[in-house]
Parts: sequence; C-alpha cells; structure tokens
Amino acid sequence: MEKVFVTGAAGFIGSNLVDRLLSDGKKVVGWDNFSTGQQEFLQTARAHSRFKLIEGDCLDLSALTRAMAGCDFVFHLAANADVRFGLDHPHKDFQQNAVATFNVLEAMRTNNIKGIAFSSTGSVYGESEIIPTPENAPFPVQTSLYGASKLACEGFIHAYCEGYGFEGYIFRFVSILGERYTHGHVLDFYKQLTAHPDCLKILGDGMQKKSYLYIGDCLAAMLHVIAQGMAKKAKHRVETYNLGTDEYVQVNDSVGFICSALGLKPRLEYSGGNKGWVGDNPFIFLDTKKVRATGWKTSLTIEQGIVRTLQWLQQNQWVLERR
Amino acid sequence: MEKVFVTGAAGFIGSNLVDRLLSDGKKVVGWDNFSTGQQEFLQTARAHSRFKLIEGDCLDLSALTRAMAGCDFVFHLAANADVRFGLDHPHKDFQQNAVATFNVLEAMRTNNIKGIAFSSTGSVYGESEIIPTPENAPFPVQTSLYGASKLACEGFIHAYCEGYGFEGYIFRFVSILGERYTHGHVLDFYKQLTAHPDCLKILGDGMQKKSYLYIGDCLAAMLHVIAQGMAKKAKHRVETYNLGTDEYVQVNDSVGFICSALGLKPRLEYSGGNKGWVGDNPFIFLDTKKVRATGWKTSLTIEQGIVRTLQWLQQNQWVLERR
Repeated sequence: MEKVFVTGAAGFIGSNLVDRLLSDGKKVVGWDNFSTGQQEFLQTARAHSRFKLIEGDCLDLSALTRAMAGCDFVFHLAANADVRFGLDHPHKDFQQNAVATFNVLEAMRTNNIKGIAFSSTGSVYGESEIIPTPENAPFPVQTSLYGASKLACEGFIHAYCEGYGFEGYIFRFVSILGERYTHGHVLDFYKQLTAHPDCLKILGDGMQKKSYLYIGDCLAAMLHVIAQGMAKKAKHRVETYNLGTDEYVQVNDSVGFICSALGLKPRLEYSGGNKGWVGDNPFIFLDTKKVRATGWKTSLTIEQGIVRTLQWLQQNQWVLERR
Repeated sequence: MEKVFVTGAAGFIGSNLVDRLLSDGKKVVGWDNFSTGQQEFLQTARAHSRFKLIEGDCLDLSALTRAMAGCDFVFHLAANADVRFGLDHPHKDFQQNAVATFNVLEAMRTNNIKGIAFSSTGSVYGESEIIPTPENAPFPVQTSLYGASKLACEGFIHAYCEGYGFEGYIFRFVSILGERYTHGHVLDFYKQLTAHPDCLKILGDGMQKKSYLYIGDCLAAMLHVIAQGMAKKAKHRVETYNLGTDEYVQVNDSVGFICSALGLKPRLEYSGGNKGWVGDNPFIFLDTKKVRATGWKTSLTIEQGIVRTLQWLQQNQWVLERR
C-alpha cells in the first residue's frame, strides 16, 4: 500500500484517515463530492505534498476511474450516512451507497487495483437476536434502507473478491465519535443545549442501548487489520470485522455524560417508544472478539469518546451552523 | 390478490405463473422486455380476456410505475438469471437485478401496492458450511455476482417491508425444471447430444451436487405460502422460504437420467475441478423444513423433473435455436 485512494476524503472518518495515512508516509488521493464533506477538514492534508484532492462524485464512473489511476489500494468511505431519514428519500441510500460502491469496484477493476477497505455498519444486523452480535450471525432481516444498502455493497465486494481476485476488508462500524464528528446524537444534544440549556428533547424512551467507538481507535483497527492481512502469504479474499468497544451505554447514560461535562441539568422530554425512529435499533452491541484477537484494543471508553467529541464541538462551533 | 402484476411474465417461471393465475381467476398484467422472454410462452395467456401484456423494462421507472397502476400484488420475477457468465458483464447483474428490483419497489410505493413476492436464489448462501442450508444460516460470503445481486434485492425488500409496511414473500429457489425451461444443464446436455450423440462435455468433475424443483411444485409452493400469509390476521412484514426438493443429485446422476431417457451412451469428457465455473457452488442443497411445515409438498422427484424437462425440449426444439 503506497498510493491510497480515499473516497469520502473530506468526511469525518475520511479526513481523519487521510491525515493518518499521510503521517504514515503514504501518498494519498482524496475523492469527495462535498455533499457533506467539509473543506476545513482537509486543511492539514492540503498543505502536504503527498496529498492530492480530486473533487468528484462516485456516481460519475468515468471521472472516478480516471481519478483512481495509479493507486494501489482503495478506502471506500463515501456514503449516505444518514440512517434516520432514509425513508424520506430511498433513492439516496440506493444511489449513494449501492450504486456508488458498484462504481468504485468497477473503477478498481479497470485500473487493476485489487485491495479495498469498506466502511460497513452494525446496522446490517437489523435487530439481531444474538447480542453481542458476531460477524457470522444468522441471516438478518434488514430494518433500514441504510443497512440494506450497506449489505448490498458488502455482497458485491464479496463477489468481486471471489470472482476477480480482489482482497477485501469489510468493517462493520458502530457509531464513531471524536474530532470532526458532524452528525449524530452528541451533536443533536449539544445543539439543543446551546439553544436552550434548560430542556433536552430525546427521541424514544432514552433506554436504547448503543455502542460507540472513538475515531482514533477505529482508524487504528482498520490499519492494523489490513497490515496484518497484507503481510500474510496466503491471501484471504474477503474478511469482515466488527469494530466497536467492548461495552454499550443507554441514551440516558450519554445524556448524563454530556450534561455533566457541560454543567447543565436540563428538563428531559422523551418522545417515547423503544425506538428513536422507524428502523432505529433499540440495542446495538457488536461482538468484537475477532478484531481483538488481532491484538488491537481500544484506547478510549465510550464516556471518554463522548466527552472528547463534545470538547471538539465546543472548539468548532461552525459545525453546528453547517447542518 | 385480485389484479396481479407479474414482471418477467414471458420467462420460464413467469409465463407458467401467468397461466396458473389466470386459471385461478385472477386478472393479470404481464410485464416483460423480451430480452430473454419468449412471445410463444404467452400464447395461451394472450387469448384470455383477464390478461394484459405490457412490453417494458424494469429500468424504465416511469413506464413501470404507469404499468403497475391498479394492481394489488406484484410477483417480481424479471431478472438476469445467467449465473454462469456474471463475471463477463458485472453491470448486468447489478442493473437487471439490483436496480430493477429497487425500481419495482419504488413503482409499488407510488401505486400504494403493498404485497410482493420475489424470486431469490439458493445462491445467496454462497458456499454454505451448513448443508442442508436453512433460511437463517450464518451471514454468508457471496461467491457470485448473481447471488450478490439477489441478496441486495432481498435487503431492499426487507427495508421496504419494515419501513413502508409492505408485505414481502421471498423465495430462495434451487434450479427450476419443467415446461418452458430455457437455460441450464438439461438444455446444454440435450443440445450437445442432439448435435453429436456420441460425446458429452461436462463442466467440472461431474460430482457437483445440485438440487432442482419442478416448476409446478415451485408455483404451488409460492401460491400456497402467500395464500396462508394473506389469510393471517396478524400480518408479517417479510418472510423468506427456501424452495427445493428434499433431495439432491450429482451432475453425473443427471447425465445418467438424460442419457437413459434418450437411449444414448455417449463418451463423457470432464473439464475437471470441483466447480463448473468461477462462482459455481459444488454443493447446493437447501433445508426446506420451513415451507414443508406449511403443508406444501413436491409432486415430482428430481429425476422425474429432469425427464419431464427433456420431453418438453424434445417437443419444443425451437427453444434450442433461440439461445
């Protein structure tokens, strides 16, 4: 892995990955359509001689194919990551996740690039009956368009690995926290509490149990697994890893961490029900034995990750205005 | 279910279904782009006042949406069913299976049609470690673009059932045999033996174990399951059923049935290896307990189904010329 192509390079995870790859000595080509990516997140990278930014959309296959030329590995992170509003515009998950990923695979095939890492999601497990949920859980029912679209991507990556000799690394993330976090409950709560510190509206009953992972730990896991995989003589075709912490918290715990860090005691208003929205999963907790068996471990707890995220948002209030 | 929309209505399974629905007293709108469908297969249906044929492609969402108006149930059977040559043109599986199915779901949503039956495949299990393979097998690796594309369709159907209150019936077929069979090993072998009765070329080592189901039994299973499902007061959202016989045969057994029925003793030439092609599954055998628990059972064995198929091909030699 010498020259790496990163889709979604201006996003939360993508831009952190770009910085990390550059500091590891790689050449990096960043690709983003700036639909949700932020120019600000690439300020450090842009000052770097080993970085090149190409603005473009994964739905434009010919531009994508040209942009990828000369690279030897692809991190495909570009996605519609908006889980909650999927039902308002189903074509978005289909186009930006399924079609975009198919195009990335086709662009790789044209350029004879064989290695791909893909950001999938714990949402592909739907409402799993097995918790913590292992990678080889029973065939799940998809409860969200987001999960369905990511599952579609996973399947096509498998087929390209099996059929064209690609080497694939699929990572099923829990929610990621940390610097450059631009959407999710920490932002929602912080925004609400900035506007009116005396009241916090919470979707569902606050008892939903969720799992989170700090961005630094997420990147470390991906790079560690890929480095181990590429060092093996006997190449695998495709491997899937859950990425998460070995714990979960209730939404109410999270409310506690945030309010305590901000020194606030707002009135809590619940929308009720065990789900925040249709397709919300009331209990997400992934079995991470497989990735931990590679030697990787987390550096921050969920509470520490939430507090770190909050601190970053306090220092980067512009993010609140952007959405 | 009064007015039924059938995609792929001129295909092998579709045209048999259309005839069956018409004889059950339903109104039927058939949709086909005639890329592989055969006008001849709709001769009986066309004579029927309750049948309407609309020629069109599932990739044309607006035409599809107009065509579906007024129907109350959709059998989505249109597909690229060419498993073997998927790697030659990956966009075909993606477009004709994944995109087409997404369009069918969107057309249904626009027309407020909630019921869908979908022809999926045992190929979604890849090379399962559990044989016979149950519906809730562990999360499989996709070994073919065909399987991957059908899995993508399944996921989106799930998400529409969960998110928009659709009621879905997903059927994972083994290979289907019988009248109007237009592709597969029985046709390949019969074509070869017609051209040169003394020699038969077989892909792989002939030891691949496969499962087959007679078209009449396939249709009976689908209609039985759907009728039971719709009679329930408490509606399910999506249910998945394996459809197959409770047996499997080796390719060599099949060769034996066919040669014996034709009274031939050709020299057998094997291409070798345990797979017929990249992505071929050397052992397909589905666990059909779930569908059998509904009371459905098969009427023909695999051998009987193969012989029936052969007889139909002998009486319909024009099919050999069409492909």
